[in-house]
Amino acid sequence: MATVMKIGIAGLGTVGAATIRILENAANELAERAGRPIRVTAVSARSKGRDRGVDLSAYRWHDDPVALAADPDVDCIVELMGGAEGSAKALVEAALNAGKPVVTANKALLAAHGAGLARLAEAKGATIAFEASAAGGIPVIKALREALVGNEITRVSGILNGTCNYILSRMEAEGLDFAACLKAAQELGYAEADPTFDVEGYDTAHKLALLTALAFGTEVDGDAVYVEGISGVTPLDLVMAEELGFRIKLLGVAERTAQGIEQRVHPTMVPRTSQLAGVMGVTNAVEIQAKPVGAITLVGPGAGGGATASAVVGDIVDLARGNRVPVFGRPSGTLAKPVRAPMQQHEGGYYVRLQVLDRPGAAATIASRMAERGISLESILQKGRGTHRSASGAVPVILITYATTELRVRDAVAAIAEEGVLDGPPQVIRIER
Amino acid sequence: MATVMKIGIAGLGTVGAATIRILENAANELAERAGRPIRVTAVSARSKGRDRGVDLSAYRWHDDPVALAADPDVDCIVELMGGAEGSAKALVEAALNAGKPVVTANKALLAAHGAGLARLAEAKGATIAFEASAAGGIPVIKALREALVGNEITRVSGILNGTCNYILSRMEAEGLDFAACLKAAQELGYAEADPTFDVEGYDTAHKLALLTALAFGTEVDGDAVYVEGISGVTPLDLVMAEELGFRIKLLGVAERTAQGIEQRVHPTMVPRTSQLAGVMGVTNAVEIQAKPVGAITLVGPGAGGGATASAVVGDIVDLARGNRVPVFGRPSGTLAKPVRAPMQQHEGGYYVRLQVLDRPGAAATIASRMAERGISLESILQKGRGTHRSASGAVPVILITYATTELRVRDAVAAIAEEGVLDGPPQVIRIER
Repeated sequence: MATVMKIGIAGLGTVGAATIRILENAANELAERAGRPIRVTAVSARSKGRDRGVDLSAYRWHDDPVALAADPDVDCIVELMGGAEGSAKALVEAALNAGKPVVTANKALLAAHGAGLARLAEAKGATIAFEASAAGGIPVIKALREALVGNEITRVSGILNGTCNYILSRMEAEGLDFAACLKAAQELGYAEADPTFDVEGYDTAHKLALLTALAFGTEVDGDAVYVEGISGVTPLDLVMAEELGFRIKLLGVAERTAQGIEQRVHPTMVPRTSQLAGVMGVTNAVEIQAKPVGAITLVGPGAGGGATASAVVGDIVDLARGNRVPVFGRPSGTLAKPVRAPMQQHEGGYYVRLQVLDRPGAAATIASRMAERGISLESILQKGRGTHRSASGAVPVILITYATTELRVRDAVAAIAEEGVLDGPPQVIRIER
Repeated sequence: MATVMKIGIAGLGTVGAATIRILENAANELAERAGRPIRVTAVSARSKGRDRGVDLSAYRWHDDPVALAADPDVDCIVELMGGAEGSAKALVEAALNAGKPVVTANKALLAAHGAGLARLAEAKGATIAFEASAAGGIPVIKALREALVGNEITRVSGILNGTCNYILSRMEAEGLDFAACLKAAQELGYAEADPTFDVEGYDTAHKLALLTALAFGTEVDGDAVYVEGISGVTPLDLVMAEELGFRIKLLGVAERTAQGIEQRVHPTMVPRTSQLAGVMGVTNAVEIQAKPVGAITLVGPGAGGGATASAVVGDIVDLARGNRVPVFGRPSGTLAKPVRAPMQQHEGGYYVRLQVLDRPGAAATIASRMAERGISLESILQKGRGTHRSASGAVPVILITYATTELRVRDAVAAIAEEGVLDGPPQVIRIER
């Protein structure tokens, strides 16, 4: 059997502890499967004393995570600290500079610095494995970097944040509002005390940026993602979605358009019969459309210590087996500078919900402003004067448009608002069929 | 850039032609992604003259496929002929004996001879890549061999035959019987003129046997699969399934039980809200349950030239990159002889549909025979005397059992049949929750 692969782990939160647990408990089997023993030799974390439920006494401790890279008794760095800058970045750079492969779950780091780190890895004959950085335990990076290499990917879309999907699932199931479900998610440990990063879509955006680069052979362009979170989705929107045959999901979508590569994260109406619509709770899912394979959907746990550690260990075993894949699936020099498709030119169907003051001519005004901009309506739904009527006497009017552009819809909605027929802000949700 | 990888392809049906098309059309990109050019140099098929829509003039032609293995201008064999014996087996053995890696879509060959071929590959320093042999374009082999290597797999279940799923989907959607939907599937090219291999479950069994070996680290044991096809499923069963919150799918299921490894293929009631229930038409899906990752579901096209070629090309690029994985994910010497769990000891819930002659005491008789064997009933559904009443005056009675054993259910149903209260054979369908 070949030489031992020695692992240094930086960051000992739930994922780090779960990774150690797998590497220790399954050591014999992993050695067989990898063709060589895999052993943790050194670790680093903020607090040495904290009880993590794993015995660290056999590992060398480094107060400074960056020191792991220089440790001669470490062949492979596992970076689980997180953060786009600071120690995580310094450690990954130091490891690559030392020619040591890196396994990381750090989407923020790769979304911000992926292209540069890929070039560094290549120059130094090292690599970065990052299955754990998007969609947790779902092997979507492997699918894009390896399995689907014979395809032209046309579109990647996914539910990439379990917190948001949990909140939306619960809002729908129980008719509760966003704030109540966020609170429930926080109590269950599915949402952070400061939930902004998750619920406003930034976490999804980071993951989407990585999948986009892998799918389209472009440099990671995290800044190009249009981002809109779920805090504005109301129980009424979920009721209307159901009535119209949709479900609302926070999707990350990347697709090649005539204008360039469009990357966007926003609440989305998806047909209730679609695979993605069936994904409830904290579960994640990614749909890949590609030629010639067709549509592939991968569903599974997107977060949590065990699921993320599963991805980390998969990457470690790949490296231990001696298997190497370019960081973004192709030589870094061939990664194209992405042309950003502006969101204003996004084409698709739209759900528009207006709170309309119940006065003569209001419906005609709305229809006219849409028609003037060439927007065709697939359906109009006016919710009677019953339960949905507001205190001020406004009633919801739902418009479902045929494919049109973001610019036209925004323009029409602004024009309608100027007519003074609305009570409260309009709601606009994009539709994906 | 490293040396060219030279490919010899045996079998030029739709998959072979689609593979050539990808390798030719995407040659430059694949060379970049693999780090070396990949070039088809030689081919073999039954008929040289047939028009396959691809230009074969640049490739050396071998009338005997086995000759590809000895061709010095071939580094890697792609076997797309099919069949468990004969030329396909001879070619794969010759290639491995020559130390050349093999890419194959041949589930029948591997289900019958997988363990021996894995030993041969290992002895000769070669390998076999077979992503295309199960679930077509869905990267499930890669998930089991590589991505989920840090997990203990407890259960694999899947819709592995598009023909059957198409027929069941259409029977449900249109209320048609098996024969009518089979005919429609044949007309659309989704079913063979002799459909036995697909509709009686043997194709699913071959694929399941491969997934079982990968999941549980055992030698392939295709003979151990319990197989039951879909030809006995009736429109009434589909209606009852819907009423009870289920859908009927032909599932392949492999799980570790106290009795050993249970492998079975049969029509199955799955909850309508499950991921697998949402998979309609020719689409395939595999659900993997594993610790610590949880449940992963992979959905996509399970057949067709493009989807299968996508998997073949993925394997070719892995090999061109120099990446090697043991055939069944671990050294062949460590593959355990599987302990077969006998189907009679299968534990689970059951749907039992009886055509009961409408006479006093019939229901009491049925309930007694079940109770005597310790079978608890979750629900009993008697379909009135309306549309479901047969010419002889029998009405369907549906029993849903709590978890019990196959032996008890079979025994109870036989005892009921002996009472002379039934008109026609009983239907028994297993339930998976």
